[in-house]
Amino acid sequence: MSMGRIICAGLGPGDPELMSLRAARLVQGAQHVAFFRKAGRQGQARRIVEGMLAPGCVEYAMEYPVTTEIPADSPDYIACLSAFYDHWAAKLLALSQTSDVVVLCEGDPFFYGSFMHLYVRLRGKAELDIVPGITGMSGCWTVTGQPISWGNDIVTILTGTLPEAELARRMADSDAFVVMKTGRNLPKIRRALTEAGRLDQAWLVAHATMRQERVTRLAEMEDGDCPYFATVLVHGGAKRA
Amino acid sequence: MSMGRIICAGLGPGDPELMSLRAARLVQGAQHVAFFRKAGRQGQARRIVEGMLAPGCVEYAMEYPVTTEIPADSPDYIACLSAFYDHWAAKLLALSQTSDVVVLCEGDPFFYGSFMHLYVRLRGKAELDIVPGITGMSGCWTVTGQPISWGNDIVTILTGTLPEAELARRMADSDAFVVMKTGRNLPKIRRALTEAGRLDQAWLVAHATMRQERVTRLAEMEDGDCPYFATVLVHGGAKRA
Repeated sequence: MSMGRIICAGLGPGDPELMSLRAARLVQGAQHVAFFRKAGRQGQARRIVEGMLAPGCVEYAMEYPVTTEIPADSPDYIACLSAFYDHWAAKLLALSQTSDVVVLCEGDPFFYGSFMHLYVRLRGKAELDIVPGITGMSGCWTVTGQPISWGNDIVTILTGTLPEAELARRMADSDAFVVMKTGRNLPKIRRALTEAGRLDQAWLVAHATMRQERVTRLAEMEDGDCPYFATVLVHGGAKRA
Repeated sequence: MSMGRIICAGLGPGDPELMSLRAARLVQGAQHVAFFRKAGRQGQARRIVEGMLAPGCVEYAMEYPVTTEIPADSPDYIACLSAFYDHWAAKLLALSQTSDVVVLCEGDPFFYGSFMHLYVRLRGKAELDIVPGITGMSGCWTVTGQPISWGNDIVTILTGTLPEAELARRMADSDAFVVMKTGRNLPKIRRALTEAGRLDQAWLVAHATMRQERVTRLAEMEDGDCPYFATVLVHGGAKRA
């Protein structure tokens, strides 16, 4: 019988003040925290809680394996990531035998969050608790100063990894939409917006609610100038305007 | 020159502990708070902050005009609501001449929030500040214990007020989806789910993260048993399962 829980705390879009009261309490009281990051980076989740951890709190940086030499759709890549998640699921499970462990997660854990790869491995084996957070996209539309959706608006969440024709079709067929995972997909996203006749309505937002925040109309910026973690969005409400 | 700001504080899905640190600080320090409610009800936003308001804080209940005898799509209804929003925009603007005013809003203000009707009337006239919140739908998918979206999943946000054929088409064409504003639209939503072949995957969630929380598979409940503020959702991740 384990003594502790594995708690995934959603931390919101970036500004530490946008974390929930519950997440803040859990972070401040944690004896063990774990978080994903790229090798050599601080990591967005860890950055949000800077200055909040209790003295003596043990930190576990779950560093993604370096896979730049393996194509992302190859069996080797999938096996490598799978072994990485297996390793950390086992490690967190062992820690939870004696203590609570708080996994830090930017945004909202159940909305495109990396934690779910651990969650599916731990379900049924550990006591799990998920604390929702403000999504990164809520941070983005808030800083544009316009509501994303009104009344009966249909909102579609897309990823920049989708094929161009599919992006264009869905952009044309939604009142409002958000494109996550923009980065190097921006030229394709821009072409899809043009095909859909929505380019003039599109905003690009990066680092929303943080010091480096950037909010710009997409038509007014160059593709090469796009930060990796950027979100493209088009607001609804046209039926009302 | 006004002395105060009009601040809309998103309060999240219902559990007061899921409000952001920033929203909590604003609520606790407020001298004036305003909130929408139906006549005779406490109102969801006001309920979330119960016990948090400072002594002497002045409360403004913005009670929706009773319009049950006017069809919701009639010019009279639209004029009645418009006059209501005009009245409160003017009132908040007057209050903001001398003090900050905090408008309480459940969920995330810029995601289908009522505050936007005041926002468009006040923009350019008052200093406005919007604090994002955890959406009601994040609360819903969290309490189902399953991630709503993985990898490249497409997520569509629909409202139960849409025509049945359109609901069915979009349900069939999305990996994951959320249907807001369910209530008396549930029989139509159920037919659309059936047409789209998604009924067996559908969950109904009401009062997520609150004491009265209810989480059930839609196929296992009766239409007449649906709470008014219920959300229907189907999770993504099928490509991975």
